[in-house]
Amino acid sequence: MEHLKAKVRTILDFPKPGIQFRDITTLLSDPEGFQEMTHVLANRYKDYDIDAIVGVEARGFIIGSVLALVLKKGFIPVRKPGKLPGETIGIEYELEYGTDRLEMHIDALPKGSRVLIVDDLLATGGTMQAACHLVEKAGSRVVECTFVIDLPDLGGREKLLDYPIYTMMSFEGE
Amino acid sequence: MEHLKAKVRTILDFPKPGIQFRDITTLLSDPEGFQEMTHVLANRYKDYDIDAIVGVEARGFIIGSVLALVLKKGFIPVRKPGKLPGETIGIEYELEYGTDRLEMHIDALPKGSRVLIVDDLLATGGTMQAACHLVEKAGSRVVECTFVIDLPDLGGREKLLDYPIYTMMSFEGE
Repeated sequence: MEHLKAKVRTILDFPKPGIQFRDITTLLSDPEGFQEMTHVLANRYKDYDIDAIVGVEARGFIIGSVLALVLKKGFIPVRKPGKLPGETIGIEYELEYGTDRLEMHIDALPKGSRVLIVDDLLATGGTMQAACHLVEKAGSRVVECTFVIDLPDLGGREKLLDYPIYTMMSFEGE
Repeated sequence: MEHLKAKVRTILDFPKPGIQFRDITTLLSDPEGFQEMTHVLANRYKDYDIDAIVGVEARGFIIGSVLALVLKKGFIPVRKPGKLPGETIGIEYELEYGTDRLEMHIDALPKGSRVLIVDDLLATGGTMQAACHLVEKAGSRVVECTFVIDLPDLGGREKLLDYPIYTMMSFEGE
């Protein structure tokens, strides 16, 4: 996976001073990189019993939708408040300062669905934890949480101990 | 295309009273619908001379990324202000009340690239017009603007007279 990892760009001091931001857009804009990233993920899940792919706004839409396409599943967006037009269920979660909220259409998943939740990057894990709780609140089950990039120094796995996790590449102590 | 159109749900009074919102999430969550939508678009463009696919945040990420995957092109996000970590170019555009701004990484497109810009829905056309201007500001060329849903009553084509447009399905006078 090192050649895919090399396509991820590091931006210093974004979103604030001292942060090294791992920028996936350079991987996505590389045709071969985008293909390979997708097929590594799809290959992992090709024999899993999964009913639907949930993608977390906004970069999770990119990864989740290509995975849904290749696995021939439906794609379901989890969004920031007020973005979904139909009736939603939502969940609040804590940020470093204040709270945020994720929403999903209340009828997006048939009860008992087996769901793969997709985002681009595992940092503190708070957003993915909220997405998992939201899927469970909807009466469905999280089969796995999948990420392209893992930042293990930020401890995100501790928030996701209840769920299987897969990450494609890790930036640790760099 | 009528069977795909039937998978788009209409939500009354969103985002404000009197609006019939055409909700694409029910098409995306339908595995066969999502496959067919993607392959109709990919089939249209399979012989076009295109270097990259640009998707407009946020639902344009879903449609643009699957199209990029099937066409084996890179995917480039156009985003709301402050979301992209690298150096960006931006463009302001007018909304019904006030202005908004779109941004793209300044190095996302090699100069002279031939670009397909993707969004889910053509309404007033203001966002897509801004995305086209942004691609041109970056020194590249818009091959076509492509949408799944067309709302012709809102007059969006008048803002896009300089560009070829494709829309997969139209909701007119409904």
